[in-house]
Formats: sequence, structure tokens, C-alpha cells
Amino acid sequence: MGSRAHPRASTAISRDRLWSRLMELSEIGAIAGGGVCRLALSPEDAQARRLLCSWARARGYRVYVDAAANLFVRREGLETDSPPVLTGSHLDTQPAGGRFDGAYGVLAGLEVLEALDDAGVRTRRPLEVVAWTNEEGARYAPGAMGSMAFAGALRLDDILDRTASDGTPLRQALAETLSATPEAERRHERATPAAYVEAHIEQGPRLEAAGLPIGIVDGIQGVRWFDILVHGTAAHAGTTPRGARRDAVQDAIRVVNALNLALEDGSDVLRFTVGRFSVHPDSRNTVAERVAIAIDIRHPDSGQLAYFGDLVPGVCRSAVSRCEVEVREVFHKPPARFDAGVTRTLEDCAKALELPSMSMPSGAFHDAFFLNDICPSGMLFIPCEGGISHHPSENITPEQAETGARVLAEALVCLAR
Amino acid sequence: MGSRAHPRASTAISRDRLWSRLMELSEIGAIAGGGVCRLALSPEDAQARRLLCSWARARGYRVYVDAAANLFVRREGLETDSPPVLTGSHLDTQPAGGRFDGAYGVLAGLEVLEALDDAGVRTRRPLEVVAWTNEEGARYAPGAMGSMAFAGALRLDDILDRTASDGTPLRQALAETLSATPEAERRHERATPAAYVEAHIEQGPRLEAAGLPIGIVDGIQGVRWFDILVHGTAAHAGTTPRGARRDAVQDAIRVVNALNLALEDGSDVLRFTVGRFSVHPDSRNTVAERVAIAIDIRHPDSGQLAYFGDLVPGVCRSAVSRCEVEVREVFHKPPARFDAGVTRTLEDCAKALELPSMSMPSGAFHDAFFLNDICPSGMLFIPCEGGISHHPSENITPEQAETGARVLAEALVCLAR
Repeated sequence: MGSRAHPRASTAISRDRLWSRLMELSEIGAIAGGGVCRLALSPEDAQARRLLCSWARARGYRVYVDAAANLFVRREGLETDSPPVLTGSHLDTQPAGGRFDGAYGVLAGLEVLEALDDAGVRTRRPLEVVAWTNEEGARYAPGAMGSMAFAGALRLDDILDRTASDGTPLRQALAETLSATPEAERRHERATPAAYVEAHIEQGPRLEAAGLPIGIVDGIQGVRWFDILVHGTAAHAGTTPRGARRDAVQDAIRVVNALNLALEDGSDVLRFTVGRFSVHPDSRNTVAERVAIAIDIRHPDSGQLAYFGDLVPGVCRSAVSRCEVEVREVFHKPPARFDAGVTRTLEDCAKALELPSMSMPSGAFHDAFFLNDICPSGMLFIPCEGGISHHPSENITPEQAETGARVLAEALVCLAR
Repeated sequence: MGSRAHPRASTAISRDRLWSRLMELSEIGAIAGGGVCRLALSPEDAQARRLLCSWARARGYRVYVDAAANLFVRREGLETDSPPVLTGSHLDTQPAGGRFDGAYGVLAGLEVLEALDDAGVRTRRPLEVVAWTNEEGARYAPGAMGSMAFAGALRLDDILDRTASDGTPLRQALAETLSATPEAERRHERATPAAYVEAHIEQGPRLEAAGLPIGIVDGIQGVRWFDILVHGTAAHAGTTPRGARRDAVQDAIRVVNALNLALEDGSDVLRFTVGRFSVHPDSRNTVAERVAIAIDIRHPDSGQLAYFGDLVPGVCRSAVSRCEVEVREVFHKPPARFDAGVTRTLEDCAKALELPSMSMPSGAFHDAFFLNDICPSGMLFIPCEGGISHHPSENITPEQAETGARVLAEALVCLAR
């Protein structure tokens, strides 16, 4: 795969077209404070998909959809049978999300297809822009559902009976979403891509702080998720002496104290989060019967991630006094290193466009985490204001959006040559 | 007030009548495991009240109800205008409650009225059996609502707009409950009782362990309730270094650790409970934005209760690292000592019946806690199996029920002489 840039491709990128589409898309599910609530497989998600299809069909691109409702917009290559080069991200958001997380990567991809048409650039391989289903995982678990299904990391059939909090089974939400875009042709076989490149906002403050327009993502840190259940005995807060209690809250706090000690990291690279601490019956005057703790551990080094994660079950068991504790690992994905060829292509294209960039890891998951297991993959970041994401105030400028799309255009042309 | 027992009154107590009524009442709201779910002011509560009224009317007792839906069954005295001697408890239960908490005190009271009729015993003062509204506080806060309103500790008008989790306003639930017993005459003025005696299951293991059939309650420990709110900033678990977080879970755990230290009590008399620890958004991969902690502190000594409770706000403020903390005291009731005359009457009556008893404090609240502020009050406990309460397995024997009712009968006659 060559890595020389074709400035002809990127010059046709239209800042106005890309920005006006980002703004039009952000009206679907708009919420107070400039944010977006467009949950996966909801009516708003369906409406966003229809809008994407209408833009695609206006330029004559064919649209495909697979069983997971991943939506593909295809610009044909000179070699129709070649595996496509894939780019994209997702259209769903967090419940109180922003306008650019996910949406940027999809619309930057569409902008590249149109810019290549406008500039009269043909590629040997087909180019496809994908909107992965349910990256956020806010309405249905797990997140990155579409890209995991595509990459074979998840069997969709195993989870079709899961329900959203409103009671809608995933099976039904998928069927409704698929029926919202009847123009999309159904794909039954996966066409393994020749490469995958995802453009995304950084969701962190480093590019802004460094004053750089482009980040080249070298990998995604690994992650381990544990569920910890502490079982005690409910008792009356007034009549039961502390010495006679099996208090699930107190033992759960001993567990977190012990984990905090065991997972200390002076360099502050290890991420350790107790985001869920859920008490039953959660009543002021009842000694708690049980507590469900959910923890998230991340590290860019697979040895360190293994070491710290492996401590968890023993630390929990030693920490409790009178309660029982159950520890279950529910997810473990080692760190990903993106493909050296794709990464170098991105670096070379930024350099050819005279755009300063830096190499950086991603702290967050992305669909590229899973695509990386089946084809050469990479990501590019653009800065976002204050590093804020998953919040209505998430923001970028039209210039930042355009700059990222220009690098993406050059890189896709190189990879599809 | 004399305290010589009248064995004539207690010999007419009918174990079978009392037990069969306890069993019939326990069918209203019966749940798996032998328990009862009869939430305050629910259709089940209304049905229980209708059953109580039907038993009362069958013996010709008049029934009254007040604005808080407290239900009074009156056996007339020789002096119709004398303040009545009151006994009773409550008919509502916890969501997964037992058959005897509350129900025992109401039906033991009714059994006494009928036993006196059967034995031909007249009293100078009227006797009234009361079913207080919403002692448990499970459906509407606060608990002991009816007895607090009766004692002037709560203005009912201030809370009528509160809603249950199903959305029903208290105003509506009260109106529906009142309309369920049209035979009950409405009382607009409170008749301050001459005395109040409440029979109740112990809800603790001491009587069973000591092999004693009767406990004479000398007082109820004082209680202070605090709400503690820890405010942090939501952040992405993958992208935000620990050093840059304002993690509400971690600071809430610092708060509990600090409270545990400050409220240590080697004698294990001080009760300190963290029953509620409620995280928002309670999501594994989001650093928590806020945590609501609800604590319960109890002590039988009012100076100790004041000392320990007064520590709470300062301890919380010193404990947090980067989050804000708000501490609000939402309830404070000093320890109650029951009236010496009522307590002595109960002791003398037990002795006259040759029933061994012990003097003991109550760790739990009861309606008597509030009645004690307006009239001479006391309580008697009977043992319950394993000390278990607020649970479907809550249990007593017919003999234990009968024994308590016999002491209650003698005591009420003494107090109403």
C-alpha cells in the first residue's frame, strides 16, 4: 500500500457541505444545551439513517445493510470485486450526548466520497462509509454491538431477546430500524475490508492543549470489566447492633478501599473506575442486604493490564469481613495496536498536507477496536473543545472538521489505490 | 392510677379468637414465604380496615376515623366524657413484611375489648383500640405518619401533595382509604387520651434468648437522620486520568470511612447505619457525578446522640477531596422514656399473672414514640422467633400472642379504672 498523498482529493473537501450536514443531523434528537439524544435503534436513529441514505442516493451511491443494521454507503472502485476500504463511525449518541461523537466520522467519510467525485478521482478498490449500530450501548448492552457482530466478536442471535428499559426487545428494535431504510440492500455475507480508518473527535484535551489539528491514534488501551456482588443480610437499623450485622454496604466499602490500595499507580496511567455501586434495598433504616459493584480497569500495556486485573478477585475476597463476595470478569479485551501501515499512511498524508500531528493512544473504545481484529485498521483524531464529550456542550469548529476530512480523504485514496 | 390486676379481665382472653383473626388478617396482602405486603393506604390496607370494622360492629363498638385516617374502635366507659385509654398499633406492613408487626398490637387490643365484654368487666374510662395510619413509611414518607399527625408532630396539610412511586398523591390515597369505611364516624377534634399502651413483637432476639414471655419497654432510643450529597463531575472512565477526576463515588467512600472512624463505639450501643448509597448515573464506564448517602444514627442517651450526631457535618466536609458535599439533618428525635406509672402498671400486671418479664429499651420506632409526647405511654413486647422482623418469616406462637394480650387486658383495666 503506497502512502504518497494526492492533494487533488483533499482540495475538493467542502467545509460548508460537511458542516451544514453535521448541523442538520444534530437536529435529529436535539436536546437542551445544544446536545443530542439519539439512542441506538430508536425512532431518532432511524430518522438519522434515512437522512444519510437520502444524501447517499442523491449522489448515486448504493446503500447496504447487514443483520446488525450496520449501514454501508458504497462508492464503486475500478475493481468491483476488490475488498473495499472502509471508513465510518456511528450515528447513535449517549442519552445526554453531543453533536459530533460518532456523527463526525460518518459524515467526514461521506464528504470524502463526494469530494472524490467532485475532483474526478477514481480508486482501484471500492470505498465504503459505514454507520455502525449501537456504539454507545446506552439503550442495549453491549456497546460497539454492530462492529463486534461484524468482526465476529459477538453472536447477534445470542442477544436478540435483550430488552431496553422501555421493554422493547432488541429483535424488534432491529427489525424496525431495518424497515426504516427499505432502499438499503440486504447483505448476508461479510465483505472483509482491505482496511478500516475511523475519524473521531478526541474526547480528551491533549490535541487542544498542544495546539495540533490532527492526532494519529497508535492504539486503544485494553480493558477489563468485573462485576462484584457483596451478599449480606438485611436487618433493622435500630435493633441490630453493629457487631451482629452482615452489612453489605460496609463490606462493599471495604472492597473498594482494598481495590484502591491494590490498584494504586503513581504514574496515573492505570485507569480504575468504580462507576456503579448499587445497594439493595437502598433504604435509610435497613442494613443493606446486597451491593452490586461494577468496575472498569484500563491500561495501554497488556502485561500491566493482566497484572492489575488478576489481583481483583483475591483482593475482594480478602477485603470482606462477614459478607460473601462473588467476583465475575464480564469483559476482557487486551490493548490494540493499530496497523503500522495504516498509521504510517495517516502520518504521511498529514505531513503532505503540511498539517502538524501527534501520535497518541485512545483512552476510549471505538468501533476500530474491534475492526482491528479482522483487517488493518487505524484512527485519526481531531481536537474537541476543552476535551469535553458525552455531554451537550461537546464542540468542534468547522475548520477542525474540514482538516480531519482532508487527511481522511488522502489516506483513503492511498489505501484504496 | 391503681396497679392491682383483675384476673377476671385476662381470663376471658381467647387464644383461638385472637389467633384466628391474626391468620385471617394475614391473608390480606399475603405474599410468598408466609409474608404480607399491605402497604399503607393501598387497597389491601382498606380491606384490612373493613375487616377490623366488621369485627368491631359485630360487637356493637362504634368506629371513628380522623383526618389522617387513624381508625378508632371504642368501648364505652362508665364515664362517657372521660378521656379514653388508648391501645393499638398499625395495620400496614413493609413491602416484604410479616404477619405480626403492627397487626398484633391492633388485634390484641380488640381481643381485650371483647374479653372484657365476655367477662362483664366495666371500666370507668372508655377504652379505644387504634390502627395508626402508615407506621412503616414504605409507600409514603414519613413513617409513623398517623401517630405523628395525632400527636401534633406533623401537619398533614403540608404533605398531602407527596406521591407514591405509582404516582398516587397522598391526598387521593387518604380520600380513598377514608371512603372504604363509611361506617366510621369522622372525628374533627382530637380526644387526648388518658394513657396509651402499645403491644408489639420485639423485633429482636433478647426475650427469646432469655426465655421470657414479656418485655416491659422503658423507652425508645433517640434517632438522627442525615442526608449527605456528594457532588462531583461526570467523566469518561477511559479518557480521564484519576488525578483529573472529581469522582463522587470515591469521595462518598471517603465520607463513609471518616464517619465509621468518628462514630466508633466500643460498647456497640451507638447504632450507625449507611443504608442508602445511591450513585448517579450508576454506569460502569462513567466516573460518577453524584452520590446520595442517607444515614441513621441512634442512641438511648440523649447527650451521646447529640454528641455523635453533631460530628457528622464537619466529618463529611473534612473527608471529601475534590467534590462538594452538602449535609442536611432531616429528622432528629431525642430518646423517649416511657411514663413511670404506665411502666409500673405493666410490670405489676405481669407479676400478678405470674409471668416473668424484663425491662428493656426499644431499638425500633413505634407509634408510642410519638404518643409519649402527649400522654402517659408505655409498651409491652412479646418474643418473636429468632428476633426476625420485616421479613416474611417473622413468626410468633398462639401462646405468646395470648400471653401478651392477657397482660394488656389487666393493664388497660388498671389504667381505665
